[in-house]
Amino acid sequence: MEDGAVNGYEMDTPKNITIKGILSLLMESIDNNNHSRNVISLGMGDPTAHSCFHTTHVAQEAVVDALQSDKFNGYAPTVGLPQTRRAIAEYLSRDLPYKLASDDVFITSGCTQAIDVALAMLARPGANILLPRPGFPIYELCAAFRHLEVRHFDLLPEKGWEVDLDAVEALADQNTVALVIINPGNPCGNVYSYQHLKKIAETAEKLKTLVIADEVYGHLAFGRNPFVPMGVFGSIVPVLTLGSLSKRWIVPGWRLGWFVTSDPSGMFRNPKVVERIKKYFDILGGPATFIQAAVPGILELTDEVFFKRTINILKQSSDICCDRIKEIPCISCPYKPEGSMALMMKLNLSLLEDISDDIDFCFKLAREEFVIILPGTAVGLKNWLRITFAVDPVSLEEALGRVKSFCLRHSKQFERY
Amino acid sequence: MEDGAVNGYEMDTPKNITIKGILSLLMESIDNNNHSRNVISLGMGDPTAHSCFHTTHVAQEAVVDALQSDKFNGYAPTVGLPQTRRAIAEYLSRDLPYKLASDDVFITSGCTQAIDVALAMLARPGANILLPRPGFPIYELCAAFRHLEVRHFDLLPEKGWEVDLDAVEALADQNTVALVIINPGNPCGNVYSYQHLKKIAETAEKLKTLVIADEVYGHLAFGRNPFVPMGVFGSIVPVLTLGSLSKRWIVPGWRLGWFVTSDPSGMFRNPKVVERIKKYFDILGGPATFIQAAVPGILELTDEVFFKRTINILKQSSDICCDRIKEIPCISCPYKPEGSMALMMKLNLSLLEDISDDIDFCFKLAREEFVIILPGTAVGLKNWLRITFAVDPVSLEEALGRVKSFCLRHSKQFERY
Repeated sequence: MEDGAVNGYEMDTPKNITIKGILSLLMESIDNNNHSRNVISLGMGDPTAHSCFHTTHVAQEAVVDALQSDKFNGYAPTVGLPQTRRAIAEYLSRDLPYKLASDDVFITSGCTQAIDVALAMLARPGANILLPRPGFPIYELCAAFRHLEVRHFDLLPEKGWEVDLDAVEALADQNTVALVIINPGNPCGNVYSYQHLKKIAETAEKLKTLVIADEVYGHLAFGRNPFVPMGVFGSIVPVLTLGSLSKRWIVPGWRLGWFVTSDPSGMFRNPKVVERIKKYFDILGGPATFIQAAVPGILELTDEVFFKRTINILKQSSDICCDRIKEIPCISCPYKPEGSMALMMKLNLSLLEDISDDIDFCFKLAREEFVIILPGTAVGLKNWLRITFAVDPVSLEEALGRVKSFCLRHSKQFERY
Repeated sequence: MEDGAVNGYEMDTPKNITIKGILSLLMESIDNNNHSRNVISLGMGDPTAHSCFHTTHVAQEAVVDALQSDKFNGYAPTVGLPQTRRAIAEYLSRDLPYKLASDDVFITSGCTQAIDVALAMLARPGANILLPRPGFPIYELCAAFRHLEVRHFDLLPEKGWEVDLDAVEALADQNTVALVIINPGNPCGNVYSYQHLKKIAETAEKLKTLVIADEVYGHLAFGRNPFVPMGVFGSIVPVLTLGSLSKRWIVPGWRLGWFVTSDPSGMFRNPKVVERIKKYFDILGGPATFIQAAVPGILELTDEVFFKRTINILKQSSDICCDRIKEIPCISCPYKPEGSMALMMKLNLSLLEDISDDIDFCFKLAREEFVIILPGTAVGLKNWLRITFAVDPVSLEEALGRVKSFCLRHSKQFERY
């Protein structure tokens, strides 16, 4: 094998930047032997790193009970345990004008696997998919692996990061298989109004394309607009709803997600479509059976107080973010977040002396201040920054104080220290 | 949407038969309102349905401890937790003439996801893969979804289900990306000798193709041949080893598997190959972080007594199977199983009066005797049957007694009751 001439393993790797990839490079750029201050990451959307974000004991006990019952060590049906599908159908139906059936719900290994299912099911030669910019790069990576052409439409910061529906209409053609929205929004922290979601549904219907509604941050809304699931408009356009326990229950590591056909008109109940989806699930791993078995209890028993507590901390953290950003001259946040766990802020490079772009900013910031922030380039917006505010308030204050020092030090109107 | 003219969801579904699909049809064919006897399934390879197959408390406690530590509710790296990768590398290295590194190990959602990773990584336009017949149909289904052409080579019952290496040589060409072996064997219950595995490696090397070694039944050997991992021959040919906790620890529902590059010559350490594998893991769900975190403890603390107990029950069950089969004139087992949890038996239709084929046999058996057996057609061998003997001995005796009654009743030399 010295000549490396084994067949296979020769295909191109997708060129996509991944969030984890760039955050690893930022982390590696910090000289661990040469600093006394702690590293603070505002990069990853994993709130469990901070003790103020903690799941409820109800959820943890439900999983322990399911495991210790000895009833759930075996295989589940690949589409999910019946009781889990039913419980999620009921949970999501609370906010819909119609009832989802158990058969509409397929259990996935987190929302990531639900994204793959949606894109793999829609892929066919020549097909394209419309993705938001800024967005969540797993969609682009998944589209590359599943051979779906990606076309980007802009989210409009001056309109609360609403979808540029004119751009959507201009991009779509007869090979457009879906339009993706992420609501509450990652990375922008926006929450779409009922009216805007309705317009998205009407546009998709006109273009004869589906809507994939990524609602992994569902219910994490703390501003003017309440969270409205896209499935509300399922009678206008078929919707694939993707979600998980990860964010609302603060357990991203449990890998319990769902792929749901929110489609009262029944397009997805076509036996051929159902058969195709079921067969695809046969080749997926899926989440652990005992975690699935805990879901009915988790959905039924979690106290409203737990959700309110999370919402309150997120609101407080996002307020801190916005207040501190106002004090930093070269950074601005065009939209105060109203949901999810992230926001986008714009870099004004003209005020900085020796920073070439967002990537340069983030690497210098990491090396000088031990603060990790994701360059906007990673989510599709050059010279913007994405901040995760699901961070304990003290660390957030400290991190943004360091960002301020950094900006002042590199600012054109100040002398360097 | 009344015209159903939404774009997408129009692609053909793979035509493959799945084991779960055919077992569901058999189960549905039983009239539940009209029988007093219990249904006994010898169809699925899930030992947890029988109380004599039970995981060890050590494993269960390790998972509970990891969950209750509150340290593992967050995301793991998509390739797996470092300590889990290291522990599996050490566990597998015990049986290899070289040491695997942590970086050789990628954690998957059960062995099913490991199969998908292997096939998806190898797929490229025009590529083909060599699969055993009989085999495990998830490979065929996965190949269909990932656009890999399948070519079948026979396993030879008269030679202990060894690979027909002449057939392999005749089938392979420059587009052959891998040869799959399942050892210990599903569905045949065979365990390959060191010599035969070496010949497989040499053949693959000559053909310039990889070996995918599905060792999900690794160490479940109770006959002449000890279990030898294919990775032993990794210096002859690069090997992808697939495995999981599922069978040896009797926890298929925990979905903890691995995809391992057993390749001391380092072909898989090419940075481009590693990058491609890592990016593919970014779009997979992967297993729960707290289950991953339990793996080092599980591998370290499980007592040898637990493994021996499982082996003893499997040996006893397989003996019962072979003894009872000998009493049934129209069925024969050409090879006494020496490993895994399944065996293949051949149907002699010429002795039966009104049975047209294996599928007809299994449906009539289900309806008349409430015993579920998988028709060989589902695993590639028409007019054979696959039996899972990981069943408690009492149920196994009862089920095979019913099969005998059924065969006698449908036999040409006997009058019907």
